[in-house]
Amino acid sequence: MLKFNEQKQIDDIQGALDLRPEVEKIIDSVWEKGFDNIYYLGIGGTYASAMQAVTYINGKSNLPAYVQHAAEYYTTGNKRLTKDSIVILSSVTGTTQEVVKAVDEIKTVGATLIGFIDTEHSPLAEKCDHVITYPAPGTEQIKFFMVADRLMKNNGEFDDYEDYYQELDAHLAKGLVEAEKQADAFGLAFAEKHRHDAMHYFIGAGNQWGAVYSYAMCYWEEQSWLRSKSIHAAEFLHGTLEIVDETTPVTLFLGEDEQRPLAERVKNLLPRICGNYTFIDSKDYAVEGISEKYRGRVLSFLLMHCVTQRIDAHVEKLNCHPLEIRRYYRQFDY
Amino acid sequence: MLKFNEQKQIDDIQGALDLRPEVEKIIDSVWEKGFDNIYYLGIGGTYASAMQAVTYINGKSNLPAYVQHAAEYYTTGNKRLTKDSIVILSSVTGTTQEVVKAVDEIKTVGATLIGFIDTEHSPLAEKCDHVITYPAPGTEQIKFFMVADRLMKNNGEFDDYEDYYQELDAHLAKGLVEAEKQADAFGLAFAEKHRHDAMHYFIGAGNQWGAVYSYAMCYWEEQSWLRSKSIHAAEFLHGTLEIVDETTPVTLFLGEDEQRPLAERVKNLLPRICGNYTFIDSKDYAVEGISEKYRGRVLSFLLMHCVTQRIDAHVEKLNCHPLEIRRYYRQFDY
Repeated sequence: MLKFNEQKQIDDIQGALDLRPEVEKIIDSVWEKGFDNIYYLGIGGTYASAMQAVTYINGKSNLPAYVQHAAEYYTTGNKRLTKDSIVILSSVTGTTQEVVKAVDEIKTVGATLIGFIDTEHSPLAEKCDHVITYPAPGTEQIKFFMVADRLMKNNGEFDDYEDYYQELDAHLAKGLVEAEKQADAFGLAFAEKHRHDAMHYFIGAGNQWGAVYSYAMCYWEEQSWLRSKSIHAAEFLHGTLEIVDETTPVTLFLGEDEQRPLAERVKNLLPRICGNYTFIDSKDYAVEGISEKYRGRVLSFLLMHCVTQRIDAHVEKLNCHPLEIRRYYRQFDY
Repeated sequence: MLKFNEQKQIDDIQGALDLRPEVEKIIDSVWEKGFDNIYYLGIGGTYASAMQAVTYINGKSNLPAYVQHAAEYYTTGNKRLTKDSIVILSSVTGTTQEVVKAVDEIKTVGATLIGFIDTEHSPLAEKCDHVITYPAPGTEQIKFFMVADRLMKNNGEFDDYEDYYQELDAHLAKGLVEAEKQADAFGLAFAEKHRHDAMHYFIGAGNQWGAVYSYAMCYWEEQSWLRSKSIHAAEFLHGTLEIVDETTPVTLFLGEDEQRPLAERVKNLLPRICGNYTFIDSKDYAVEGISEKYRGRVLSFLLMHCVTQRIDAHVEKLNCHPLEIRRYYRQFDY
């Protein structure tokens, strides 16, 4: 299978799950100290992951958890981000300039910074109060959700915490590679059909909203140089639907969290107004050993990522376009 | 001038400003009672206005003000929206189904609902605790910002409140119609050039982000049936920029609030990578009688709206496409 190293992917996921004792130690220590607000800080792809984590928490918890956009922070500011706040961030390079700038200001405020920074000794790794370094692609959500889960457990909102992670530890890694194998034929067919689309619309809700936001922007636009637009399922019905006709390429991600009904509403509408739609439903991917009641947590997003990874691999090959290259980003100053 | 009734537009704006004693009375009464959090509730266009109001407050205030998406509310929920919360909303018809559903749930929680509902005796007008009915297009932001301003004044964060509104009362309405006249030739030229674009990108930051979000979705997509994508200026640099080339139609809105530097960064980049860009800068529209220091508040957004209104009027005529018609919205059930 193209661009698929089964053992490495299993090891990557298992390794991310193995970070849990370290995450728990950090979260328990900040919990002990007390805090006012929790901020997931990000920009671009990490902003999308932040939206996923906060939507996840909001659906289950009373915790004051918010998304903080890095560039909005150092321009607009946020007076409710204080010395008693917790700020969680993630970065592959540890050098994302807007995040560095935001973190520098947050340090003067004195909030506690918890960073999943994949490059040791990078600026962001040096600046955070607590750093976990684990450079494995596709594990950012596991890390962010692990923090969320521990916070909710400590807040008395996740009684099944141990049972849940026992299932993930035992079955998640294997389940995801199996899902990727299952998705490969679909990924190829989708890539063949849509790799020259002039524009492609991606729709999602709940933690799939962050997924489509990131998929359209960080994968199709940034990596594949394909034009795409993401739109929240609930918002799609308040404007964007009007430009859809028979030929418009539209893909709907259906997840399994509280907002699934919003995606299902779009699912009901699309076949009446469009002849070029695709539904990707995480429910179509069984994962042995993971209870039904846990699927709406991080799993439904990770399954979606398995599917899109297969699309991307085939688009890269068919379009003769290496996903690593950038026209502009980090190519010159602006 | 096409679709331009100067006296009516002046009266509309003046009438919105004249709502202030009523707004002050409501806000002072809820202030007196006390509250925990403030939510601007919306979906589609009103969600965009909510984002504008909250960004505005965040830049100047310590108030706990948040955006609450209506459909996310009745699916994901929000345990921090309580009986002590204030919820502010706006609706033209008073029947937007997702907002009605959210408001019904909020009523069971017991939060105080303040509604700018333009249709008397409509479901939303009946459900809100405080209702202001003033059906004049283009005044939603004035209403939302008026609430924000009174809250900030009561919170000791707006010493110039009386002075500011004195200036608006005396000069805003006239200033806006003058700006529309100034923008008309540009609006025609822009419409002629872009009315058949296969896709148009709109970029903005600060309270212009809600403006571009709404302009792309509620005006181009919904009313003009033209394809468009909005992207926050800071996010544009983390993905979307890679699909821009010489011919890509890109329009950048530049406002005058704290996030202007984020838009300026895109302004510096665009001419190097694109040959089909437009800058619309609220600074180009002088408004007599309004102090420089107040322009970044509601004015810079309203000026942008004057400009886009000229574009829309010309697109409507040139494209022979009445802005009122909808393909799907409220045409059948879904």
